[in-house]
Amino acid sequence: KINSERLQETLHYTCQWGAANRYGDKPTETGMSRLALSDDDAQVRRWFRQETERLGCKVTIDQMGNMFARRPGALRSSAPMTAMGSHLDTQPRGGRYDGILGVVAAVEVLRTMEENGYQTQYDVGIVNWTNEEGARFPKSMVSSAVWAGDIPIENAWALQDIFDPSVTIKSELERHGYLGEVACSADPVNGYPLGAHFELHIEQGPILEQTVKKIGVVTGTQGYRWFKFTLAGRNAHTGTTPFEMRSDPLLAASKMIASSNAIAKKLGGLASTGVLKMPIDSSTNTVPSEISFSLDIRHPDDRVVAAIEHNCLQSFRDIAQEDGAGVDISWTLDTDSPAAMFDKQCISAVEQAASSLVGPDGWLHIASGAGHDSVGTSKRCPTTMIFVPCKDGVSHHPEEYCSQDDCTIGTQVLLDSILNYDRF
Amino acid sequence: KINSERLQETLHYTCQWGAANRYGDKPTETGMSRLALSDDDAQVRRWFRQETERLGCKVTIDQMGNMFARRPGALRSSAPMTAMGSHLDTQPRGGRYDGILGVVAAVEVLRTMEENGYQTQYDVGIVNWTNEEGARFPKSMVSSAVWAGDIPIENAWALQDIFDPSVTIKSELERHGYLGEVACSADPVNGYPLGAHFELHIEQGPILEQTVKKIGVVTGTQGYRWFKFTLAGRNAHTGTTPFEMRSDPLLAASKMIASSNAIAKKLGGLASTGVLKMPIDSSTNTVPSEISFSLDIRHPDDRVVAAIEHNCLQSFRDIAQEDGAGVDISWTLDTDSPAAMFDKQCISAVEQAASSLVGPDGWLHIASGAGHDSVGTSKRCPTTMIFVPCKDGVSHHPEEYCSQDDCTIGTQVLLDSILNYDRF
Ligand SMILES: NC(=O)NCCC(=O)O
Ligand SMILES: NC(=O)NCCC(=O)O
Repeated sequence: KINSERLQETLHYTCQWGAANRYGDKPTETGMSRLALSDDDAQVRRWFRQETERLGCKVTIDQMGNMFARRPGALRSSAPMTAMGSHLDTQPRGGRYDGILGVVAAVEVLRTMEENGYQTQYDVGIVNWTNEEGARFPKSMVSSAVWAGDIPIENAWALQDIFDPSVTIKSELERHGYLGEVACSADPVNGYPLGAHFELHIEQGPILEQTVKKIGVVTGTQGYRWFKFTLAGRNAHTGTTPFEMRSDPLLAASKMIASSNAIAKKLGGLASTGVLKMPIDSSTNTVPSEISFSLDIRHPDDRVVAAIEHNCLQSFRDIAQEDGAGVDISWTLDTDSPAAMFDKQCISAVEQAASSLVGPDGWLHIASGAGHDSVGTSKRCPTTMIFVPCKDGVSHHPEEYCSQDDCTIGTQVLLDSILNYDRF
Repeated sequence: KINSERLQETLHYTCQWGAANRYGDKPTETGMSRLALSDDDAQVRRWFRQETERLGCKVTIDQMGNMFARRPGALRSSAPMTAMGSHLDTQPRGGRYDGILGVVAAVEVLRTMEENGYQTQYDVGIVNWTNEEGARFPKSMVSSAVWAGDIPIENAWALQDIFDPSVTIKSELERHGYLGEVACSADPVNGYPLGAHFELHIEQGPILEQTVKKIGVVTGTQGYRWFKFTLAGRNAHTGTTPFEMRSDPLLAASKMIASSNAIAKKLGGLASTGVLKMPIDSSTNTVPSEISFSLDIRHPDDRVVAAIEHNCLQSFRDIAQEDGAGVDISWTLDTDSPAAMFDKQCISAVEQAASSLVGPDGWLHIASGAGHDSVGTSKRCPTTMIFVPCKDGVSHHPEEYCSQDDCTIGTQVLLDSILNYDRF
């Protein structure tokens, strides 16, 4: 049985590294800003290694800095371990639960086994995936995608810090000593294969709260694609340059952002811009020379994602021409995460655990709006996720909150699911 | 007669302080980035003082750092001097002529008088106005406005660097030793009154070039107002937060920028956004918490400026409510520069000078699209401006260009206008 107090203590203890954006008086009333491979991330990684080694785990680092902590099973089988995975990196204005809960809960699961002298049959363990958020290096779930064989590691290594192009994932892995020796791969010979992947996570949406359920058994995730658009215009005086002679990338970007919103609304999906970049040498009375902005398109059906993308590109090309002398438009696809379906057997391991803990009416099947490393693992091993409610569905916000009870219930379901799966 | 070569040499010599944004191979093929009261501005100010003192001028600094260089006339009259004024500060991505030409040409005018042993009847001199551009401290022509009594000096001193609120005009004046003793005022007792103000400037628009004229005799300037809008929203996950639950300030700002453009177009005026600020802790998959953006509205008729403003505010209030949970909107008026009409006698001094140099068909009457310190001075002393063509009407751009010939002709007209006026 999970130790609820210790789980909370550990969770908030690890939040000393990267605490930011205080919103209340209590010590834990802050958000988190622990960007992937920052100094704070390096500190919590050190804690993770020490803590899992203390629990008898062997820790392996792969070439993307993913950390695998493994606890041997009774059978001493060479089969891949059953993993509990999530991430310790956060958004720059994130909270204390997104990702963190999944890793800390997994540590608490191992502690509970350890103090009860419980041995699984097969090896079990924990994965801490690198740069899940895609906040600092703008490709989310990049390291689980490399592990799954979806992206060449060179592309992932080359990803630049979103605000400082001189820093890459590789340079930060090297700086912190997290460029491991093991290939980042599910390959049984060179890589680090997993037998299954269970991820506990806050829902990040309002459904569990609204339906008064304690657990979401996750059947899959919606698809999404991230783009970066760059518009090249021309500096000009805002008082003397007639509209017809302008090449105004900020006006064009504004129209594109508004248009993408209208298109997504019409097709029942989401399209969002979280980052817009201006040259730092901009001024009130000068038309800017260049603008770039992100676009994040989502829908549970990949065909709708494609349709929104198609309509946006068409609309953006028109907008690029429609004012004055027009602007030059170019773009890159930064993250491509098709909709994922999770594994039946993993799902039923969670269903059983949930039913016996909160009763058959205490949980529901749910699809994830966010992406998770479980999307990557689901391509290479049986995978599912366990959702717990979060206050008002708020996430990627300093005030993100999951109650002590809900954290504990989720962690108990994680433990029981692992044991169920180990028995199958 | 103006020394054309020396004028060019001096102009480009002074551009060593702040040269930036190279666009060609020739030594002078760069733009300028000499923000008001930056270290580069302090250097060119030192040059200006030395150079004018060498020409026998007495240099006075007022409490806004405006620099007045005065050359005594034959009458030894105590009447205020006839001034040639402009500014040595530039845009962050500006060129080598906007402002700079006016001050350097004035120096060349004094040199020409000096080497010909010519004495005017009344005192003549030069003013270098502080922070004309409004690029660093976002109130353009602020120091001539204080001088004219339009703005209390405390408000001007308190203006913050647009990207670093810890730095104010006052702190920068103090740092560089430019917080002078004389009141910044046209008051004859405490201040530094002027008898007249002539400003040579590039047109910054395409009219002279298109009509193949050498000189624009400026009859006045259009009105304009600068606003800063701040939209407060709420961080949220872009993948899990339905549109209805969002409070997205970037979406709202985008719609407002597009809307202001449509409104200005419809009313035949200009509305432009040159600066949009995002929190630096933004990310692709997070709705930003706060956005601010500038708005610059212009028209020759102040009533049309007011109408565009009115329609924008109405539209912005609607937009702030129309998506999801809405955003909070607030704003400040940063610059308010009503349309100005210049002085008949000054204008006729320039007309005469222009007619005798380039013939009656070589010049035309023109209204300025940009604001200038002459707007402020026109409220306290007879004022006009002399425009020279600039290539393709381009300004506030590194490639801003005025040919050697056009610089020389403009400077000759400036000299002759001053002499005409002195004789009136
Ligand atoms: N769970 C989560 O917030 N992941 C980041 C990737 C995404 O934007 O969905
Ligand atoms: N001449 C000039 O560019 N002045 C700056 C003020 C304005 O934006 O009009």
